[in-house]
Amino acid sequence: MKVAEVLRMNGGIGDTSYANNSLIQQNVIQITKPITDQAITSLYTTLINNPKTISIADLGCSSGPNTLLTVSNLMKAVDNHRKKLRRQHSPEFQIYLNDLPTNDFNTIFQSLPKHRREIAGDGSGLCFFNGVPGSFYGRLFPTDSLHFVHSSYSLHWLSQVPKGIEENKGNISMASDSPPTVIKAYYDQFERDFSTFLKCRSIELVKGGRMVLTMLGRQSENPTWDIWELLGLALNDIAAEGFVEEEKLNSFNLPVYGPSLAEIKLVIEKNGSFTIDRLEISRIHWTGNIGSEDENIVSDEGNGGYGVARSVRAVVEPMLVSHFGQ
Amino acid sequence: MKVAEVLRMNGGIGDTSYANNSLIQQNVIQITKPITDQAITSLYTTLINNPKTISIADLGCSSGPNTLLTVSNLMKAVDNHRKKLRRQHSPEFQIYLNDLPTNDFNTIFQSLPKHRREIAGDGSGLCFFNGVPGSFYGRLFPTDSLHFVHSSYSLHWLSQVPKGIEENKGNISMASDSPPTVIKAYYDQFERDFSTFLKCRSIELVKGGRMVLTMLGRQSENPTWDIWELLGLALNDIAAEGFVEEEKLNSFNLPVYGPSLAEIKLVIEKNGSFTIDRLEISRIHWTGNIGSEDENIVSDEGNGGYGVARSVRAVVEPMLVSHFGQ
Repeated sequence: MKVAEVLRMNGGIGDTSYANNSLIQQNVIQITKPITDQAITSLYTTLINNPKTISIADLGCSSGPNTLLTVSNLMKAVDNHRKKLRRQHSPEFQIYLNDLPTNDFNTIFQSLPKHRREIAGDGSGLCFFNGVPGSFYGRLFPTDSLHFVHSSYSLHWLSQVPKGIEENKGNISMASDSPPTVIKAYYDQFERDFSTFLKCRSIELVKGGRMVLTMLGRQSENPTWDIWELLGLALNDIAAEGFVEEEKLNSFNLPVYGPSLAEIKLVIEKNGSFTIDRLEISRIHWTGNIGSEDENIVSDEGNGGYGVARSVRAVVEPMLVSHFGQ
Repeated sequence: MKVAEVLRMNGGIGDTSYANNSLIQQNVIQITKPITDQAITSLYTTLINNPKTISIADLGCSSGPNTLLTVSNLMKAVDNHRKKLRRQHSPEFQIYLNDLPTNDFNTIFQSLPKHRREIAGDGSGLCFFNGVPGSFYGRLFPTDSLHFVHSSYSLHWLSQVPKGIEENKGNISMASDSPPTVIKAYYDQFERDFSTFLKCRSIELVKGGRMVLTMLGRQSENPTWDIWELLGLALNDIAAEGFVEEEKLNSFNLPVYGPSLAEIKLVIEKNGSFTIDRLEISRIHWTGNIGSEDENIVSDEGNGGYGVARSVRAVVEPMLVSHFGQ
């Protein structure tokens, strides 16, 4: 089973849809907005030949309000800057919304007419939307066809579950009792994937193009994450109660890796196609969806004692912001 | 209710899906293949600067096997011709699959990994797929961004039901007893729509770009169609039996117009952006889906005597092939 053919955020617009459960991801987009705005205006200022069209790709766009939020922000930033520069004509925007083929593109597309009416009056240039189904760990766009690449909260997803981690029984990701071979297999997969990502984008971006990448990351040396360990424990309890087959649980591992700044830097320097303008880490709390932090404490009584919820409060989510120029 | 926000072929891959009921449309693609092949190879031969990327748009792509058939044919035609010309490098193909926002793009996208594996071995260049939701009676692509436009069996759909046809009660399209104002309203809508289509595409196509357009059309002067008239009669019977509200039926009209060669020519010449390389009409029988022509005779006994089926055999479907160079 290939990750690229099955992984997706929950589609539609129902209660359990990603569209209605992605406030944290929206916060991340808003927090990084000044950096993204600065990157695209700097690109727009320096673009040679003042091109008629600016091509922007959002990689891992998902489906929901966040999908179009980034694009709207970028268009507004360019238009404000255009007025400052006193350039007369708005560029046209060619927007590529990318995600895996099982992402709910239908829901995005059906929301576009309303979105178009909303942005029609704000003076920005014509805007053309494209859905691009496929893994960003492969080529997605023609050579020299993109000016700007944005990716928020997606690059911590690996292209596949690392190979050779059969010994990681009982855990669903790297945990404190995972053998060193498991930790290494996860890192190797991240290195290979991120390196492939950079290689593909370096072909697709025009000279002078920019990227702003935001992903789940970590501040410490230790690559294990409390939350996956606790979720693993909870799943083991569920398996012990017979609701999940133990064999299935033992073979289940999340294709997720949250790199450190040093690890990111190493892969970029090895790749050699990009220079780093900014590389930084921020903390955000996992509270966006449920309200205040206190409300996030769910009692573990009466729900089988899975032991996950009580720790949620302590879990913070470091975030990496990388900003590259080619 | 806007046509562009509701019109779609039936999605999915079930028994009543368009994907499983589009053999006629497949036949049309195969019949026009020599013309399409000739147009793209001629484009490929004459394209200035031997570009790295060829951008192809299929307008009204629907969802089903036909969606990718045209694209596969075009890529193969270019690759065969490339070998004849002894050009060493395959171009990359940027493919834009367009249809209205309610088209089932998810089903297309989910079939792409399999399709990619099938075409991976045949030596053609890299191929990038994009879904483009929107009406082709408006701008869909940036200025000067397309090399080739293809549209099969879509351009007879109008952008809206013509205004001012309230008198067309009892009919669902132009019929032999429709008032002349109704006939004129339909033609005017076609002229306005096709003219808008040409204007948009003339901006989006590069200099030297080509189009191959195939649509439902007619050979005679008379713009009415037996099949809509008969279907109208059948619907009136159903309304008389109380299964459909008469008021709803009276306000229902199909946004479809099948132009004659002369009408097509007039609009193209008025627009002035394109020269016509070929303009021709072919007949195909409506038998593709059900087998031989004889099997297409459905008895009208025992099904309420709707009177449609017995005439189907006589209905032939003229087809227009237009091939333009800019």
